[in-house]
Amino acid sequence: MNSILIIGAGRSATACIKYVLDKAQDRNWFVTVADADPKLAEAKVAGHPNGRGTWLDVMKVNDRRELIGRADVVVSLLPAYLHLEVAHDCIKLKKHLITASYVSQEMHQLADEARNRELIFMGEMGLDPGIDHMSAMQQINAIKAKGGEITAFRSYTGGLVAPESDDNPWHYKITWNPRNVVLAGQGTAQYLENGKHRYIPYNRLFKEYRLIDVPGMGAFEVYANRDSLMYREAYGLGEIPNILRGTIRYRGFSEAWNALVKIGLTDGSYPILGSSQLTYHELMEAYLNPAFTSGSVKERIANFIKRDPDSDVMKKLEWLGLFSKKKIRLKNATPAHILEQLLLDKWKLKPQDKDMIIMQHEFEYKLDGQQQQLTSTLIMKGEDAENTAMSKLVGLPLGIFVKQVMEGKIVRTGVNIPVMPEVYQPVLEELKEFGVVFQEQHKVL
Amino acid sequence: MNSILIIGAGRSATACIKYVLDKAQDRNWFVTVADADPKLAEAKVAGHPNGRGTWLDVMKVNDRRELIGRADVVVSLLPAYLHLEVAHDCIKLKKHLITASYVSQEMHQLADEARNRELIFMGEMGLDPGIDHMSAMQQINAIKAKGGEITAFRSYTGGLVAPESDDNPWHYKITWNPRNVVLAGQGTAQYLENGKHRYIPYNRLFKEYRLIDVPGMGAFEVYANRDSLMYREAYGLGEIPNILRGTIRYRGFSEAWNALVKIGLTDGSYPILGSSQLTYHELMEAYLNPAFTSGSVKERIANFIKRDPDSDVMKKLEWLGLFSKKKIRLKNATPAHILEQLLLDKWKLKPQDKDMIIMQHEFEYKLDGQQQQLTSTLIMKGEDAENTAMSKLVGLPLGIFVKQVMEGKIVRTGVNIPVMPEVYQPVLEELKEFGVVFQEQHKVL
Repeated sequence: MNSILIIGAGRSATACIKYVLDKAQDRNWFVTVADADPKLAEAKVAGHPNGRGTWLDVMKVNDRRELIGRADVVVSLLPAYLHLEVAHDCIKLKKHLITASYVSQEMHQLADEARNRELIFMGEMGLDPGIDHMSAMQQINAIKAKGGEITAFRSYTGGLVAPESDDNPWHYKITWNPRNVVLAGQGTAQYLENGKHRYIPYNRLFKEYRLIDVPGMGAFEVYANRDSLMYREAYGLGEIPNILRGTIRYRGFSEAWNALVKIGLTDGSYPILGSSQLTYHELMEAYLNPAFTSGSVKERIANFIKRDPDSDVMKKLEWLGLFSKKKIRLKNATPAHILEQLLLDKWKLKPQDKDMIIMQHEFEYKLDGQQQQLTSTLIMKGEDAENTAMSKLVGLPLGIFVKQVMEGKIVRTGVNIPVMPEVYQPVLEELKEFGVVFQEQHKVL
Repeated sequence: MNSILIIGAGRSATACIKYVLDKAQDRNWFVTVADADPKLAEAKVAGHPNGRGTWLDVMKVNDRRELIGRADVVVSLLPAYLHLEVAHDCIKLKKHLITASYVSQEMHQLADEARNRELIFMGEMGLDPGIDHMSAMQQINAIKAKGGEITAFRSYTGGLVAPESDDNPWHYKITWNPRNVVLAGQGTAQYLENGKHRYIPYNRLFKEYRLIDVPGMGAFEVYANRDSLMYREAYGLGEIPNILRGTIRYRGFSEAWNALVKIGLTDGSYPILGSSQLTYHELMEAYLNPAFTSGSVKERIANFIKRDPDSDVMKKLEWLGLFSKKKIRLKNATPAHILEQLLLDKWKLKPQDKDMIIMQHEFEYKLDGQQQQLTSTLIMKGEDAENTAMSKLVGLPLGIFVKQVMEGKIVRTGVNIPVMPEVYQPVLEELKEFGVVFQEQHKVL
């Protein structure tokens, strides 16, 4: 095996491409980076003798199959809904496939075919999902190996801005898919508490956040994810009475975001007709029922969300430009799309800004007759707006795992996520060289 | 032209099939009714010498094209997302197409092709959309012809249960797509009031209902639809300062439905993992935050929705079985799907139940220096659970328009909705024979 195909050359691909190219010369690998934008693909390869950037419209079946046919291992960094096309090609052409995306039901259904053809299909090999699985499983297996009985597992991740680059009242900047930032949490958050199911619908999600203490960083807010129940079996925690996955934000974020939810600005399901003719001020006014409130639009919004016009929440809304008399300029856009456009501008990383990833696991377990607690925390900052911690922590696990596969060290075939020691041990070990180190705190309760 | 193809033989097709068959013998038409269930198609044709029922899997392109190829006029009663396949076939095979569904963007894009081939593509030819367009346009054009200047147009429709068959605390039974009953209103309702845009997000929609008086029937609740702004141009009301479309419900419905929205039971976006293992009681308990409430699950829900445990709203929730200890039995179902299953059972029409359609238009206009008001109301009851008013009012306009096309009386080609006199006049005129008569009330304000 000597040929690697990486499909997608966007920001999340940067660290993966760089890692694989760094390893390529010694090992005689050839790396093809394919993207709808060939200039971007070439820029990421940056003239490396073992690589080339090329154009690919992934919907062109023949072009796609030709590239895949020439590779041994395929890394797909496409939007999640496009992986399945690539996966079917990989089955047909007998190629290994690695992605950082959630493994869909349809992808899981390819497990037998992949196994029959001795193929490795590895999904969720990025940050979250990815490093969260691997680092949690390492601790879970270590606690079990000591004879501990795990009674609670809570796992939180946040893609944040580093404190030194935090210069806006929301204390947030965008480091991943902006559409997902706006739509985050829609659905029903589900978790387990004292053996009971707990559901939080979207209309309460940002009200019912909890606070966590991040060692050395202080208190952060966490809101519950929808997927907390999904990994119980995969983690070997089928009977655990407490399990929660959540998203980390700086303090004050949830309350202000909840105001946007309540006003209706996160609805992505239905377009506002004639939105291009409206100003943001008119948009906000249109959400107000004239029967219930009086005063300026800002005062009426403050009244509607039950906050003082001078409150922090109102300052955040105003800072976004929601009361400005600028035209929206998006034609028949959903409220979510209108909000996304504002955030893309306001929450943009400046070229020298550093982002910051925080991941924290909390384990509670019984061992030697004692109730004990282990907190394991990763804090990692990026270098600048291009080389973000987000990009590194998504791309490095992919790259390291590609190396493992290329070197023939992975024997497990079928469709998998990285929860088995033979996968996570070497990846976590090598990640340390890149500064990906979890700090542990241990307490007897 | 002598051959008609009706695709779909479900409840909404009954009246259309019957009408067309009744007209067929005199006119030497042959009517083919095609459905995935051939027995159902045959039952609807009921041995009529000018008709036949046949099997069609609409996704089988060749079978579909063969049937369409043999017809002159095609009526599609398929779910809306399937119309487009049929429409492309109709373009290719040069056939007229009539549906009762909303005309999608994609369908509108076929306008030029349809016109070039001299084809009539008529959508929104049912009840709502359909009779609402036609009856409103008749009044709008009459007011304009007198020299009136229309300053407000409000149009409300409800598919309800007739008072004599109303035997449940919700005063509602299902007469159309149950999934749409549960998801109704999700998105952002938009309308115009005094020249200003008004938006109501889903989280306020069922709180901010208004009351209307239906002559002879008393007060009903109306909640705003998402599509009020869509028809301004088509209705020739581009500059109107007040326009609202809404949905009619009996009193008390909106407040109780709002409780379901607030609890989270109308979320159709994300499955509840392990729902088949839960009872309804456990489901409700899981929505409660134990930090905020105490008491029985029923008391805690009452507290959460800020109602007395003995209030009408709580009685409605209890009557649905939401606090029962029966198992849900649906595997990994969304809350909306779980609720739909309950409603399908609880809100089912009994065989002898009559449904009732109410449609009411309100026009305000200036004429002869006076501000005047016209209210135009249709109230129609069904015969039983099979021959519903809903089925008649969807099916008869389709049938009558098919006749117009077959008789060569329609000259307008392209993709249309029924807003032009040459279409709505004969349809409304003939509908009167079936008891579809609007009562008018006129007032000088």
